[in-house]
Amino acid sequence: MHYRVISSILGIFLLILSFFLLAFYFIALLVYPEESQAYAFLVSFLVTIGSGLLLYLLPGKFSEDDVTFREGFVVVGIGWIIIALYGALPFILSGDIPRIADAYFESMSGFTTTGASILTEIEDLGKTVLLWRSFTHWLGGMGFIVLSLAILPALGVGGMQLYIAEVPGPNPEKLVPRVGQTARILYMVYIIMTVAQVIALRLAGMNMFESLCHTFGSMGTGGFSPLNASIGQYQAQGISNAFMFEMIIIIFMFLAGANFSLHYKAFKGNWRVYFQDPEFKFYTFIILFSVVSIGIDLFRFSVYNSWGEIFRHSSFTVVSIITSTGYATEDFDRWPVSSQLFLVILMFIGASAGSTGGGIKILRIMTLFKQAIVELKHVIHPKRVYVIRFGKMYISREVLASMNMFVLLYMIFYVAAVLILSSTGYDMATISTMVVSCFSNIGPGLAKVGPAHNYGFLPDYAKWILSYMMVLGRLEILPIIVLSLPGTWTK
Amino acid sequence: MHYRVISSILGIFLLILSFFLLAFYFIALLVYPEESQAYAFLVSFLVTIGSGLLLYLLPGKFSEDDVTFREGFVVVGIGWIIIALYGALPFILSGDIPRIADAYFESMSGFTTTGASILTEIEDLGKTVLLWRSFTHWLGGMGFIVLSLAILPALGVGGMQLYIAEVPGPNPEKLVPRVGQTARILYMVYIIMTVAQVIALRLAGMNMFESLCHTFGSMGTGGFSPLNASIGQYQAQGISNAFMFEMIIIIFMFLAGANFSLHYKAFKGNWRVYFQDPEFKFYTFIILFSVVSIGIDLFRFSVYNSWGEIFRHSSFTVVSIITSTGYATEDFDRWPVSSQLFLVILMFIGASAGSTGGGIKILRIMTLFKQAIVELKHVIHPKRVYVIRFGKMYISREVLASMNMFVLLYMIFYVAAVLILSSTGYDMATISTMVVSCFSNIGPGLAKVGPAHNYGFLPDYAKWILSYMMVLGRLEILPIIVLSLPGTWTK
Repeated sequence: MHYRVISSILGIFLLILSFFLLAFYFIALLVYPEESQAYAFLVSFLVTIGSGLLLYLLPGKFSEDDVTFREGFVVVGIGWIIIALYGALPFILSGDIPRIADAYFESMSGFTTTGASILTEIEDLGKTVLLWRSFTHWLGGMGFIVLSLAILPALGVGGMQLYIAEVPGPNPEKLVPRVGQTARILYMVYIIMTVAQVIALRLAGMNMFESLCHTFGSMGTGGFSPLNASIGQYQAQGISNAFMFEMIIIIFMFLAGANFSLHYKAFKGNWRVYFQDPEFKFYTFIILFSVVSIGIDLFRFSVYNSWGEIFRHSSFTVVSIITSTGYATEDFDRWPVSSQLFLVILMFIGASAGSTGGGIKILRIMTLFKQAIVELKHVIHPKRVYVIRFGKMYISREVLASMNMFVLLYMIFYVAAVLILSSTGYDMATISTMVVSCFSNIGPGLAKVGPAHNYGFLPDYAKWILSYMMVLGRLEILPIIVLSLPGTWTK
Repeated sequence: MHYRVISSILGIFLLILSFFLLAFYFIALLVYPEESQAYAFLVSFLVTIGSGLLLYLLPGKFSEDDVTFREGFVVVGIGWIIIALYGALPFILSGDIPRIADAYFESMSGFTTTGASILTEIEDLGKTVLLWRSFTHWLGGMGFIVLSLAILPALGVGGMQLYIAEVPGPNPEKLVPRVGQTARILYMVYIIMTVAQVIALRLAGMNMFESLCHTFGSMGTGGFSPLNASIGQYQAQGISNAFMFEMIIIIFMFLAGANFSLHYKAFKGNWRVYFQDPEFKFYTFIILFSVVSIGIDLFRFSVYNSWGEIFRHSSFTVVSIITSTGYATEDFDRWPVSSQLFLVILMFIGASAGSTGGGIKILRIMTLFKQAIVELKHVIHPKRVYVIRFGKMYISREVLASMNMFVLLYMIFYVAAVLILSSTGYDMATISTMVVSCFSNIGPGLAKVGPAHNYGFLPDYAKWILSYMMVLGRLEILPIIVLSLPGTWTK
């Protein structure tokens, strides 16, 4: 293990983070002036830039060869853990979330785009802190490390290793040969779509502050809202454009849950990629199928009075859950069990590979189904040779094995966390859904952690474990788990 | 597909079944004389032998080469479905379980050694029918088809294919070169242990009828009891030997949940196999670990007054659940959620490969964990080559792939069944545990299907689906699922 290169890269991450904290200091000073908030961001900035410089300027030398896969995983793993820590400083210093377990949970929930909150009265917080809270979604969605790669070509040191470790999905795609250029392209697409959503929400009549917060939450598939009752608050307050807001958010959540390399190709003029990509087609199919199934279920149990209401809420909820955003227009904890089970399964499945969303990912689920079919065919015709392919792309046995392994690791960690957290003594629906919700970076679960509740009531140890599950899920397990293997720390 | 050979083998199965029905006719005539019961078994016998002869004597010829893997799977799949059907005749004809959905559920639950019942007042049934109900556990435990192979060397036609399709576990072991001989050895071990348990229970003071029923239920890891309150009834009635009964049943459930090829080697004098076999050691470890964990949990929540009571019930319940038997001394539905979750996980894991128990099987779970560790090591040292082995046995990439596939198929079918059955509108704990309980051939679940309840309240379609899940689980998915593939039925 080459410690020097690790500390140096971690230093760079903190320096980049400090830049954003400085920007928020000015927002707290000029846009939403509030002294305690400005002070909080100023101190956060100073602490972060100080730590960053210290780590960056440590004595010692390193070369490009020092960054192997091992270092790449370690940097990304530790990087996320400390970024969430420094990102929690404004919560603590402003006094808005004074306890460290709470503030870290909220910050990790933000960066990992989970959107699970410990807050009850969200609207009591300062505006700049709320904006920061939502902005962490935006930073974490496309990836803080991808951002670093985009900004600093100097970080090209082992950039590919970092890129692979952070970007979700079994086979992160390089859009162009150079990884720094790929990162810049992804962020460009991300920024264009972000601007588009802000404009759309503004045109529909949402104020600037909420437009920004909700855009960060949708594009990062995060789910933090500055409103106590999430997106549902607009309809509850009888705001005439509530339906319009919901539609815009559905569209952008849907786009954020798709593979961004498709958006890039579409921007370049090749719109047909959407219709050609098997994962995108299956993603769309699952959404439509789920909306209709849950819609029929809601009708059967007479939850709403009209088909309009039914499809309004079922489509918002399905898109919000499968993309791992977690915005809510309705308390689906009061829906029939069959609809709830459907949603829980969507929580496990998650969004597309290469999106900002979490979960096991559609591509892996599709591959599993294809393998299951091949296995069955093999029983009938044992001598024929079958291959798994998507469109023109064949998937090698090795990639298949590692994809299956991911799903199994996901299940092992899920079960382990459920067992450990069952010691809290809460009911089974609460425990089993809060784990999947944090692990798949969604936010709400069922029962005590349903859309109408929050995670504040949990004991501290549960909050730490769930914070761990969030980053485990966001980085797809390996970068975090290698940190705890003794083999990682030997020469 | 060679239909002639299939009908012929199915005919043989029915002829063997009819022999047992005839034996039970004499029991109903002479041992527990009751006219309606004797009549029921006589008619069942006549219908079964008639159908058997018809199928066996159909015109047409076949050769040994006609039985490929495909035919093997199809014969075993259809065989189990129709054996459960003919085995249900005594329930219907005696009037004890008049409705077909109920009787088929009860019969399938018996043969698959699930032990889930639709009966409320079990003790109201005739004794011969109750004995038959328990005896189906015994027949299904070691396997009806293995029995056929043991009895009729003539069935040597494709015997190996049938053997592989019925015996649980990733790699059914042939103890001796000839499959018929292997089947006879397994049944000899099975019969010796059965006789031993009956003697032990008799010596402890249990009456003959209940000794037989409970032995069939333990050795087959079934779980049907002729008593309304299962094994717990002895303690509830203050019978002094209740503890002794429980201990004997624990021991034999534990043995039935281990690989029978170990017992065979032990009978031949090599006792050390138990201490050398990795699966057996892990099986023992999981049981001890679970008993202690659940014990501590029961203590923490003050469920019982003494450590004696705690370990009495936690050890009985853990062994009963992991071996997929399902006998109960206590209503664990009233235990703390953490203990319940622990039990649910044991339901998924199940017993050893080559045992009479159900579930995913310990060997597969161990392999998963080993693979997970190897995968993690691989991340740190990508260039090293790792292999998975148990003791001296290496597991090939191909076997690994098919083991992983089984686990994934198990999950897919589990999720699908939960989704379909959620339409019944019951609560999540009921639905999610009744599916795993039937799929892993256990019996009780939680909530509405907890140990103090039964499956009688379910709508018919749920009973049919659960019957399907039982046989799917007992035959480890493939033999049943190939029946519904169009490719199976082409030439």
